[in-house]
Amino acid sequence: MSFLTKENGSGKARHGGKVWQVREELLQALDLKDGAVVSFHHHLRNGDGVMNLILQGLQKQGVKGLTLMASSIFPVHGVLRPLLQDGTITNIITSYISGPLGEAVSRGELQGQILMQSHGGRARSILSGEIVVDAAFIAAPSADPMGNISGVNGKNACGALGYAMADAQKAKTVIAVTDEVVPYPNFPADITQDLVDGILVVESIGEKAGIVSGTTKVTKDPIGLKIARDTLEVMEATGLLKEGFSYQSGAGGISLAVTSSLRDYMREKGLVGSFASGGITGHLTQMLEEGLFRALYDVQCFDLQAIDSLKKNPAHLRMSASQYGNPSVSSVVEKLDLVILGATEIDVDFNVNVTTGADGVLMGGSGGHQDTASGSQVSIIVSKLLSSRLPFIRERVDCITTPGSVVDVLVTERGIAVNPNRQDLLEKLTAAGLPVKSIYALKQEAEALMGVPKAIQKTGRVIGHSQSRTGEILDEIYQVEVE
Amino acid sequence: MSFLTKENGSGKARHGGKVWQVREELLQALDLKDGAVVSFHHHLRNGDGVMNLILQGLQKQGVKGLTLMASSIFPVHGVLRPLLQDGTITNIITSYISGPLGEAVSRGELQGQILMQSHGGRARSILSGEIVVDAAFIAAPSADPMGNISGVNGKNACGALGYAMADAQKAKTVIAVTDEVVPYPNFPADITQDLVDGILVVESIGEKAGIVSGTTKVTKDPIGLKIARDTLEVMEATGLLKEGFSYQSGAGGISLAVTSSLRDYMREKGLVGSFASGGITGHLTQMLEEGLFRALYDVQCFDLQAIDSLKKNPAHLRMSASQYGNPSVSSVVEKLDLVILGATEIDVDFNVNVTTGADGVLMGGSGGHQDTASGSQVSIIVSKLLSSRLPFIRERVDCITTPGSVVDVLVTERGIAVNPNRQDLLEKLTAAGLPVKSIYALKQEAEALMGVPKAIQKTGRVIGHSQSRTGEILDEIYQVEVE
Repeated sequence: MSFLTKENGSGKARHGGKVWQVREELLQALDLKDGAVVSFHHHLRNGDGVMNLILQGLQKQGVKGLTLMASSIFPVHGVLRPLLQDGTITNIITSYISGPLGEAVSRGELQGQILMQSHGGRARSILSGEIVVDAAFIAAPSADPMGNISGVNGKNACGALGYAMADAQKAKTVIAVTDEVVPYPNFPADITQDLVDGILVVESIGEKAGIVSGTTKVTKDPIGLKIARDTLEVMEATGLLKEGFSYQSGAGGISLAVTSSLRDYMREKGLVGSFASGGITGHLTQMLEEGLFRALYDVQCFDLQAIDSLKKNPAHLRMSASQYGNPSVSSVVEKLDLVILGATEIDVDFNVNVTTGADGVLMGGSGGHQDTASGSQVSIIVSKLLSSRLPFIRERVDCITTPGSVVDVLVTERGIAVNPNRQDLLEKLTAAGLPVKSIYALKQEAEALMGVPKAIQKTGRVIGHSQSRTGEILDEIYQVEVE
Repeated sequence: MSFLTKENGSGKARHGGKVWQVREELLQALDLKDGAVVSFHHHLRNGDGVMNLILQGLQKQGVKGLTLMASSIFPVHGVLRPLLQDGTITNIITSYISGPLGEAVSRGELQGQILMQSHGGRARSILSGEIVVDAAFIAAPSADPMGNISGVNGKNACGALGYAMADAQKAKTVIAVTDEVVPYPNFPADITQDLVDGILVVESIGEKAGIVSGTTKVTKDPIGLKIARDTLEVMEATGLLKEGFSYQSGAGGISLAVTSSLRDYMREKGLVGSFASGGITGHLTQMLEEGLFRALYDVQCFDLQAIDSLKKNPAHLRMSASQYGNPSVSSVVEKLDLVILGATEIDVDFNVNVTTGADGVLMGGSGGHQDTASGSQVSIIVSKLLSSRLPFIRERVDCITTPGSVVDVLVTERGIAVNPNRQDLLEKLTAAGLPVKSIYALKQEAEALMGVPKAIQKTGRVIGHSQSRTGEILDEIYQVEVE
């Protein structure tokens, strides 16, 4: 679809670049039918105001049976709970869900089902045509009248827009939703005008505070720091920490502590890596500036330093979710040597759950977890064995987010476990004198101290599935009992 | 298609990034069938070695009936003439053809037909699926082992790769052909790894001398300079030469002279434009550096200064052919105020021919001519009325490249003609006291001095068509008599 307009005396046609000032008028023009698929990206995180604004507009219009395809869903989207109950939204496809909406889905309030994808799997499903998006609403920190969208310009700049790119490329209609229209041309453009059909101007796309954190913090907890130090030793023992190596870690406290120890190690050894990737933090942009990495691949900025770096540093590279982790193409994760990941639960087969919590309620999702674990040479899970509310090592995780077949090492404060399918790593870590134990041994230690967990109270009703990045079903997700 | 490989002990799959050292082995793996569509881009211009290398390889393989989809074809490709005769290549789709291959086609040596598209029309036909490319061979000045292609890195750097992007996005298989494999990651990447299935390493992708000219020259001819000065006055009279205006011109001598006069004018008036676009020359990059334009949109670099600027200047922006001129989307040409274009012939209906020459032989093509004329607010054709070998104004051009409906003004040394469908411009130019004449009057002046041209000797055989950017047939192209 494209909104054709005439702007000049010549009668030469003009496409796109049509700026809408009134939400209702745009939604009327779009004329979405019951059962339509609408997509959103989550770079504004818990500060996002666009998804609520558009979906409440569609509710007013009386559209029913929508499939909400959001790259992630946060607590701020809890106000949409009534739209589940009244059947405005009947299905959800996402890579992460936390807060009231996750609870509502787990309590059985969604009439249809929820599909949990990885970031790379989401891009695959859109680009392959497996899922057809009728309208993509792209929260744009800035846009010009022709539709060039930049994530680094604008008062609500959020940085890279990697998760929105597949949507922009394939959705039947693409709408930039912005609170800052800038003069043409808007650059650097994360999404270019040729992919955008219209622009909706709104008062605000979100709450700055929820969009970016000033800085992401390294853990100060001594146990977390010990796990980080041991993890660095594991990385060294793999033999992968050499000139030109590549690295990714999450933004959790322990993962950041690993990055911080890695930085000291690289400076001491004069080691230079090829790239670091993923959601980017100021800790990594600092390492880029120090020459410790030649480049950064950024799909999403986690803090202000990252946004600033993306705007200024030519070696700080944008990447789309497809380029990042689409299993159907040559992606960045396939060039990744080492990835540091967290986990809510892990089981004796090394399956990892970051989708549901202690009570079986949806409180997360794969994001890039599955993609980086699959693509990397060595994936390392870092976690405390004891401190978490629920026993960390289970006989079987509640929900498989990332299959054990691609999870290689687990590092805890009580020891290190290696996946039996990685004998090569087991030998290297043992030879390095690291405290390697079987995952069963670690499980017994934990249960001796914390007891065996009781099963989660669930109904028999399947409310959705965890999907592998290549499209197969990994696990069922069940409705939980309401206390 | 993607070449799956295994690189590490983990058995984790790897896509793409497969580097081939032997042309024959790659072509065997591709296994192209008779009748396949193979595409190439022309950023290496008359220095390109890739199209000959690949097509001669396919000839050796015995593949027949290929459709050659090349963004442009140059004299250097004349060595492919035997492949027309033996039926290796039976159809050609291109936006520009000059040299022996154009002659061969005009002489009837192509068993099938030739389709002449505009640059934007080519992108439209590929992205819409109207034409399905089986294999795209992308001449890459540099590529890393995962397939990230950069046009600004490498000994044969040619700059922007705008014409190859639709091919990279939609072709069933995408092969980067390079003579420089660089460490991962290669950046800035014009085409990213997720779009590339394999890399073929060759000794040389082309002849530096033919790839870029050291600098493009402004005409010194006094008549050309007079036309340039008058053209600037026309631009001023349109009222479009104001803060934030946009501009494009060809790289011909007179067009460059217009750009040069415009530069003086802007410096004098302290005028700043929003952007200049198209094939970019050092004349424009200098104006960017002087702050006369806020940005450049570059689909192809014409000289070394442009390549250097693209590499260093963040306001020098890459654009794909679709972003440039695809009529199905919101494109840059639709934001263009003024475009300066050349012509081989123009007729009394303002139809322009830049496809065939005096003798009716193929010697050019639309390139962006049709796209910029259609998209711009005012399109201006600059040409000498008398000096060219053939009478310049005809009753009917030999071949319509750009329809008169989007050609607004003609500036010659003998006067200025305005398209009757632009009364608004006629009034403005007359009010400005410019020497406006009817195109019939200019035609008579020319014929009085040069005589009426005799018709071109042609056979009745249609060998191909000139296509409008939106996909309709504009004109037939006929086989010419062999003298």
